[in-house]
Amino acid sequence: MSYSLPHMAIIECVPNVSEGRRPQIVETLLHAVRSVGGIRVLDASSDPAHNRSVITLAGDAAPLKAAVRALVGAAVEHIDLRTHTGEHPRLGAVDVVPFVPIDGVTMAQCVALAKDTAADVAARFHIPVFLYEEAASSSGRRNLEDIRRGEFEGLSARMDSPEWAPDFGPARPHPTAGAIVMGARMPLIAFNINLATNRLDVAKKIASAIRHSSGGFRFVKAMGIALDDRGIVQVSINLTNYEKTPMHRVFDAVRREAERYGVAVLESEIIGLTPQAALVSAAEHYLQLARFSSNQVLEKRLRE
Amino acid sequence: MSYSLPHMAIIECVPNVSEGRRPQIVETLLHAVRSVGGIRVLDASSDPAHNRSVITLAGDAAPLKAAVRALVGAAVEHIDLRTHTGEHPRLGAVDVVPFVPIDGVTMAQCVALAKDTAADVAARFHIPVFLYEEAASSSGRRNLEDIRRGEFEGLSARMDSPEWAPDFGPARPHPTAGAIVMGARMPLIAFNINLATNRLDVAKKIASAIRHSSGGFRFVKAMGIALDDRGIVQVSINLTNYEKTPMHRVFDAVRREAERYGVAVLESEIIGLTPQAALVSAAEHYLQLARFSSNQVLEKRLRE
Repeated sequence: MSYSLPHMAIIECVPNVSEGRRPQIVETLLHAVRSVGGIRVLDASSDPAHNRSVITLAGDAAPLKAAVRALVGAAVEHIDLRTHTGEHPRLGAVDVVPFVPIDGVTMAQCVALAKDTAADVAARFHIPVFLYEEAASSSGRRNLEDIRRGEFEGLSARMDSPEWAPDFGPARPHPTAGAIVMGARMPLIAFNINLATNRLDVAKKIASAIRHSSGGFRFVKAMGIALDDRGIVQVSINLTNYEKTPMHRVFDAVRREAERYGVAVLESEIIGLTPQAALVSAAEHYLQLARFSSNQVLEKRLRE
Repeated sequence: MSYSLPHMAIIECVPNVSEGRRPQIVETLLHAVRSVGGIRVLDASSDPAHNRSVITLAGDAAPLKAAVRALVGAAVEHIDLRTHTGEHPRLGAVDVVPFVPIDGVTMAQCVALAKDTAADVAARFHIPVFLYEEAASSSGRRNLEDIRRGEFEGLSARMDSPEWAPDFGPARPHPTAGAIVMGARMPLIAFNINLATNRLDVAKKIASAIRHSSGGFRFVKAMGIALDDRGIVQVSINLTNYEKTPMHRVFDAVRREAERYGVAVLESEIIGLTPQAALVSAAEHYLQLARFSSNQVLEKRLRE
């Protein structure tokens, strides 16, 4: 094995599957995953509008590989992309599988795990797998959006081009399960900032100011949306590397941009899970903490 | 036992012993503590000027009780207060023993543990024990400083008064080991804020403004001191209940008071350990996080 992990490595794995409307099918997928020992199912949430479910797993490398294998097997059996509809773009029955280093494991080891798992499921289920983010085989394949452009419906035509040969598996899409995008990335933080206004143009301008694609922070994706039921707007943010683009820097930038329009920040929210380090980093910044080490966190010391 | 604890309770216990100059004696005390299974020695630090050592232990109730018993036994044997000198006020060989609830345990259970341990060591070593803080038998005995007034040298005269009968043990001081103050309290955070000035009067005025004893926050003890080697001054703070008087409120108050004298905050520092919740609370405040739960911290979910 190319990834020899230390004792007690913790890796997160967050498969996104193209089923969010039939609870019994989601349960079947979860049952397949749970039947593998040595992993934890931390979360599973389905979005009927997106017709998509996000499953959060944690464990060491070998059991996670087995869990992904079991999940792909069940998804290939029960999900048919030919009849799948939903608001969220998707390429396959198991659409995206990122491995995320949490504790006692390096990014390089997660990349190795992603490649090993990709080779395994591609061969076993005859499904093409594209590697993305830190595991990508070229810079043009780092971004999920680039790989997924045209979605399942456009995949066959796209794979006619040698440029879109998969990293593993057959050169044609799986007839019902499409393809899988697999890789390794930093923990993603879904961090939304709500503004005390109903002016959608302000949220959109701020999102444009802070996101990487339009000149903002390197590890920020953002869009402005209306929360109609509350009569306010939101800058909806994905932080793709909280170490290099920390929450406090993004929060302060949003607050300053909002001030320029005479708008106040109402509140922020973290959707789902966040690594402890992202919050400790914010405390360190605002409290101007010097010489602080995470070893000073009591719970961390007790875990060791 | 009056404290039936749930599985995996984590209690911190921080004995302060009156020996900080003879490393071999400190090592003998630590050896006695370590010989008890089921506890962790998280930290041990000696201050020669104070002639005092602070030992941080963690574990469940029963092994902590056994560890304190072992420590008191060794301290009674090796420390003689009649010849002890040092800058720090002290009443006994084992001077103060607080039990601190960390996880899976209530304050009431820590109070019960303190009383049970106090009764045990008082009877076993013929030493008076005073209960303090949350375990105190009356409001006049809550504060450590009140109990310790007059120190070891004044203890005998003081205990002549029925008002100062101990909660457990003999009505007279132990001839060489004095008395022990034992109790339960919230985790204490040693939080210092350094100012970009050498004006000691400013640090003293700010300390006076924020501390409880002179009209400030309920759970703040503070003093202004000079850091001569760095040419700056410090507001040295003990936060005795970070839930009710959070770090961010104290930090912002110090910053505002300093501004009033044209002085900036240079940095802050946490000495020793802090509960994770104190840092998460600061992040929540400054990031204006709404609807945040500690269950969203990945590491906490993984521990469960």
